[in-house]
Amino acid sequence: MYNTLKRKLAAGKTTVGAWLTIPSMDVAEALSTLPLAWFVFDLEHAPLTEQTAQQLMQSIRSEHTTPLVRVAWNDHVLIKRALDIGSHGIVVPMVNTRADAERAVQACRYPPHGARGCGPRRPWVCDPDYLATADEELIVIVQIETEEAVRNLDEILTVEGVGAFFVGAVDLSFSMGFRGAMDDSGFQKAIDTIHEAGRRHGVASGIWLGAGKQLQDRVREGWQMIAIGMDIQLLVAGAKQAIAVADLQ
Amino acid sequence: MYNTLKRKLAAGKTTVGAWLTIPSMDVAEALSTLPLAWFVFDLEHAPLTEQTAQQLMQSIRSEHTTPLVRVAWNDHVLIKRALDIGSHGIVVPMVNTRADAERAVQACRYPPHGARGCGPRRPWVCDPDYLATADEELIVIVQIETEEAVRNLDEILTVEGVGAFFVGAVDLSFSMGFRGAMDDSGFQKAIDTIHEAGRRHGVASGIWLGAGKQLQDRVREGWQMIAIGMDIQLLVAGAKQAIAVADLQ
Amino acid sequence: MYNTLKRKLAAGKTTVGAWLTIPSMDVAEALSTLPLAWFVFDLEHAPLTEQTAQQLMQSIRSEHTTPLVRVAWNDHVLIKRALDIGSHGIVVPMVNTRADAERAVQACRYPPHGARGCGPRRPWVCDPDYLATADEELIVIVQIETEEAVRNLDEILTVEGVGAFFVGAVDLSFSMGFRGAMDDSGFQKAIDTIHEAGRRHGVASGIWLGAGKQLQDRVREGWQMIAIGMDIQLLVAGAKQAIAVADLQ
Amino acid sequence: MYNTLKRKLAAGKTTVGAWLTIPSMDVAEALSTLPLAWFVFDLEHAPLTEQTAQQLMQSIRSEHTTPLVRVAWNDHVLIKRALDIGSHGIVVPMVNTRADAERAVQACRYPPHGARGCGPRRPWVCDPDYLATADEELIVIVQIETEEAVRNLDEILTVEGVGAFFVGAVDLSFSMGFRGAMDDSGFQKAIDTIHEAGRRHGVASGIWLGAGKQLQDRVREGWQMIAIGMDIQLLVAGAKQAIAVADLQ
Amino acid sequence: MYNTLKRKLAAGKTTVGAWLTIPSMDVAEALSTLPLAWFVFDLEHAPLTEQTAQQLMQSIRSEHTTPLVRVAWNDHVLIKRALDIGSHGIVVPMVNTRADAERAVQACRYPPHGARGCGPRRPWVCDPDYLATADEELIVIVQIETEEAVRNLDEILTVEGVGAFFVGAVDLSFSMGFRGAMDDSGFQKAIDTIHEAGRRHGVASGIWLGAGKQLQDRVREGWQMIAIGMDIQLLVAGAKQAIAVADLQ
Amino acid sequence: MYNTLKRKLAAGKTTVGAWLTIPSMDVAEALSTLPLAWFVFDLEHAPLTEQTAQQLMQSIRSEHTTPLVRVAWNDHVLIKRALDIGSHGIVVPMVNTRADAERAVQACRYPPHGARGCGPRRPWVCDPDYLATADEELIVIVQIETEEAVRNLDEILTVEGVGAFFVGAVDLSFSMGFRGAMDDSGFQKAIDTIHEAGRRHGVASGIWLGAGKQLQDRVREGWQMIAIGMDIQLLVAGAKQAIAVADLQ
Repeated sequence: MYNTLKRKLAAGKTTVGAWLTIPSMDVAEALSTLPLAWFVFDLEHAPLTEQTAQQLMQSIRSEHTTPLVRVAWNDHVLIKRALDIGSHGIVVPMVNTRADAERAVQACRYPPHGARGCGPRRPWVCDPDYLATADEELIVIVQIETEEAVRNLDEILTVEGVGAFFVGAVDLSFSMGFRGAMDDSGFQKAIDTIHEAGRRHGVASGIWLGAGKQLQDRVREGWQMIAIGMDIQLLVAGAKQAIAVADLQ
Repeated sequence: MYNTLKRKLAAGKTTVGAWLTIPSMDVAEALSTLPLAWFVFDLEHAPLTEQTAQQLMQSIRSEHTTPLVRVAWNDHVLIKRALDIGSHGIVVPMVNTRADAERAVQACRYPPHGARGCGPRRPWVCDPDYLATADEELIVIVQIETEEAVRNLDEILTVEGVGAFFVGAVDLSFSMGFRGAMDDSGFQKAIDTIHEAGRRHGVASGIWLGAGKQLQDRVREGWQMIAIGMDIQLLVAGAKQAIAVADLQ
Repeated sequence: MYNTLKRKLAAGKTTVGAWLTIPSMDVAEALSTLPLAWFVFDLEHAPLTEQTAQQLMQSIRSEHTTPLVRVAWNDHVLIKRALDIGSHGIVVPMVNTRADAERAVQACRYPPHGARGCGPRRPWVCDPDYLATADEELIVIVQIETEEAVRNLDEILTVEGVGAFFVGAVDLSFSMGFRGAMDDSGFQKAIDTIHEAGRRHGVASGIWLGAGKQLQDRVREGWQMIAIGMDIQLLVAGAKQAIAVADLQ
Repeated sequence: MYNTLKRKLAAGKTTVGAWLTIPSMDVAEALSTLPLAWFVFDLEHAPLTEQTAQQLMQSIRSEHTTPLVRVAWNDHVLIKRALDIGSHGIVVPMVNTRADAERAVQACRYPPHGARGCGPRRPWVCDPDYLATADEELIVIVQIETEEAVRNLDEILTVEGVGAFFVGAVDLSFSMGFRGAMDDSGFQKAIDTIHEAGRRHGVASGIWLGAGKQLQDRVREGWQMIAIGMDIQLLVAGAKQAIAVADLQ
Repeated sequence: MYNTLKRKLAAGKTTVGAWLTIPSMDVAEALSTLPLAWFVFDLEHAPLTEQTAQQLMQSIRSEHTTPLVRVAWNDHVLIKRALDIGSHGIVVPMVNTRADAERAVQACRYPPHGARGCGPRRPWVCDPDYLATADEELIVIVQIETEEAVRNLDEILTVEGVGAFFVGAVDLSFSMGFRGAMDDSGFQKAIDTIHEAGRRHGVASGIWLGAGKQLQDRVREGWQMIAIGMDIQLLVAGAKQAIAVADLQ
Repeated sequence: MYNTLKRKLAAGKTTVGAWLTIPSMDVAEALSTLPLAWFVFDLEHAPLTEQTAQQLMQSIRSEHTTPLVRVAWNDHVLIKRALDIGSHGIVVPMVNTRADAERAVQACRYPPHGARGCGPRRPWVCDPDYLATADEELIVIVQIETEEAVRNLDEILTVEGVGAFFVGAVDLSFSMGFRGAMDDSGFQKAIDTIHEAGRRHGVASGIWLGAGKQLQDRVREGWQMIAIGMDIQLLVAGAKQAIAVADLQ
């Protein structure tokens, strides 16, 4: 396997991606024609199964879009299944400690470097070199979304194998008592702190559009993975805009 | 059954609707939360089956969105199946003559007024009055999309039971030799002619956004069914707009 | 192939069956554990595809339940597809003339006896003798559901290959102007006439429960295929009965 | 969100509901036309995925039927996914201790009152007030189905946030050594004890039809949630009854 | 669009392909990793819907495999739907006359060269040049499978737009009275005649493995499209071979 | 229930089976016509859901093929769901200790012999004796796939209720440092040791074709469950063989 996202991040590029949750191949195929560097198929808050997520991956048209899976929990069984459908990496919720991060990395690597069980059903069909390359190519992305995680940032981000982090802005704001007030300066300061830690440890940083700052500011600051939103939201936004043109309400 | 769209059109209102083609209930449900007066589930150019179209109808949240089906052809078997899944009306492609229009209407009515076979499987489950009301409540919408149809407009639009027409702008432009040049004044003149005929015969008129004029102009002219687009296009538009904000390309 | 239903009818037995329309294998499997001699998978008024109907057939547990398909129309393409998924016979709507009946039979037989195209995809997998036996084993069941058909009964029922008929009671009542009044004595007389014709020509007769007479009367009269109802109705009936026990409304 | 079931229970009403397990929207839609106050989509013993359960919820026609999910286990990941598809409450198997009950409640509430991760994908689409109301509106229903749970009843039922309990009669009878003998007076006495505890602590009580007493007795005793059965059983019961009318066996 | 198969045939190459009938994306994806130049998704004898066929197309991994659809009948509605899901060509059963061939070609071309309705839903998403190129790039493949077709070969193969033909060997053998006896020398002579006509008119020829001659002979003779079989047969063959190794029966 | 596999193993027979992973009923049905004594539906490395696995089970044609499920992990919730869809046994990954084996067996038995929750939804529909027979009839198959398991073989294989074991050859080779080198004599010696332990304790042994020895050798040695491969591999093998005949590359 060959992880194009990992190389873009290593080259210091800023990438734009989307969260995919609609169980329709048409959606994944259509969005893969746009300049989006990655998709996160959400198996945490969306009701996708691995079976459906695999179908969505199978319909990605372009080489330039890297498929990732957000697993429902930091659990080696869920991670095994996400990787065996051909994901190039995982996004792991609620990584709050060094041990959490290590557990996620372990679940992505074959012995002797980890504890992943061997049976990459889909990758084997398409890629004879998978076993030899997977440990190195897969990217592990941890979600920083609790106060505890913020306290443990240095310990988390220095775990070998953590390739990027994502700010789970809504959960973090809840955890810190801001209950979704993205613009609160205290909350933004916390986010800056996280970003700074990523920069310090050479770990790529990711965040959603709408998390309290203009995108251009995020790009200028050096965030490397920008989520433009979730498919269902993008659809509704597109429809609302078209309805607004009509302005009949 | 009770057809809210029919009443809105009779009251002279302008309505906004969308073309649905993505086989996901999430899409139909989400769009039904917006102020859209109707959905056309497209069984002509989209690969939806009646089974899937029914599922999409089943997920409409609101009373204010009327489900319609565009059948693949003016064929009584296809129309029968579209109605038996609970559509409140049909959109019929390539209605070019009075006989075409009569055939479509006939297929929507039970004997003695028509030739619809009796077995409204889904409507029966939800609506004990269906058999008594369907003939009257269903709306038949004919697509005007060939030069021949334009020549036969008066004959088509005076068929009893034709409740509205839709301009099939792309096909019409092909048929008239304009090959998609929506802004051509000759083509726009043809569209004006069609609209005028509708007005003359009291038949509601429908057209897509993007068919060569600003929406406000259409509304001012009195078009009553405005299609804001197809779901997959709305999704891509929403995503492109979000990507444009990032402006990284 | 081996058609158990055909043999039961030839032996003069009365059989009970059901109409299947719910696209769930659980339904077909569960009902196949009951003493039902046949299922009609309804591709006319229910939105089943051939793909789904095949899945339902695949989940029939017992040898004693013969799978039949009601096609949406008397059309050789639809009949071909219904047979190629493994149906043991077809139910054909709106057979009104001798020519209609002949067309249905022709569509079920391979050359030189008919015009069925060769490619029985599912039967081939399970049954090496299919090509040699299908012409003989398949059963063609015509629906008598118009006044015209009643007039042409003798011509229809003497077509070689017509194995049974079904009274399409609702459509017939519409066609004869009774609009669903099953108990009307004029309508019952028409049904008696049909049954008598079947008996005269040695063609098995079928009818739905609820078509105006008690079942015991039908059985006594010699009807051989009794439909107890459609799955969704049976479900609702079962639920209503349980709710009635609670009697809380 | 607005939980109608919770209000009915608070008003002291007896409600009737059903267990849904067939992965067909037709079933959920049809049953939602009946006077059933709630559906439990069973993700424990039925092979439904969250994806399918969401589709079933999306096809509920009426406001009066509250969607609930029985999760496969008392696990915050499973509960999170059940709530994010729009369930108005959860039924939790094997709640045997106060800690079990607290864990279930915690999983249903956002910080600071609980530990639910934030991302209510489907509710967000339909309900802008979801985050503000969910903690209060969701109902947590614990299953009492072991001898241990019976011993700990007072501790379980006094956990703040437990809105109702359901007797898991079959498992309870196994746990107590009655192996399904519902009529055993010892077993019935245990059930009475549970009901009495519910009454004492103001927690609504639920039980299945067939758990050893006539429904009228249960209603008179004040049970508030009566399950009339599982969809597949209701279907089979409806079919058996129709077959019995024929009485051909 | 860009049709690689058309170019290979024009260059005189022999190509190998397969018939796809299993409604699983895993099958299409896995087979597309092999050196197969084309897939025919069979909507005639397999119960695939256009919806499923599109999903299978969406999962083709490689540029070198051209997707084709065999439609159930030479019908412009079926052809329209097959093309709008992104097929690069169609295989048309029962082309027996010049008029049949012309009808098939007409259905594949937009006005003014044909009568295809405009709405290429899937192609539009991926390919902005589709409308400008489709007429030219699509390939029309006629099936020669009746005695009548053999008599009309010159008329059929000289219709402008017929890009290749396929021998429907089983149906042809039935039509000519050989009932599947592929090795019959009379039958092989008929096949040779067909091939000769193709060569004479510069129309590429296609046939199935197993149609009475060794493949090497076919290749030497210049057949250009060789079908190695249907997916389900290939699966069974692979399993039988593995079982044979065990040799336990 | 009646477990034919268990009886074959008790009678000392060698059986051949396959791993099923393609979510298509056509595959399961077609392979069930071959002399295969068991299917393992893989819910560990394949993205099958229990819902899909049940559908595959429902399409098994023959009595001679026993359905088994490999669960994703040795977890009572996963095992409960696998059994409730009608599996006749489970294959459990990573059984490394006596406690692991005991946990798996416990999860398969009802109280008082185990801790399985009661609600066998699918078995109940088809089999009134299920509750009385399941404990005895279900087969528990443990996977031996780590060095630790090899050390604990005697403890594992003497757990009452362990009916067979399967060598997880790839994982075992990783665990022992052979990284997939099946032919390594050290690795083969380990496998011999495992087999010997099985023989000693009267526990049937299972292994995959391709695990380093010829099948005939395995049979001679007395291995009783031989996996001929995974469906997708068998398909690709069948296709490759057909392509090789063409030999055009």
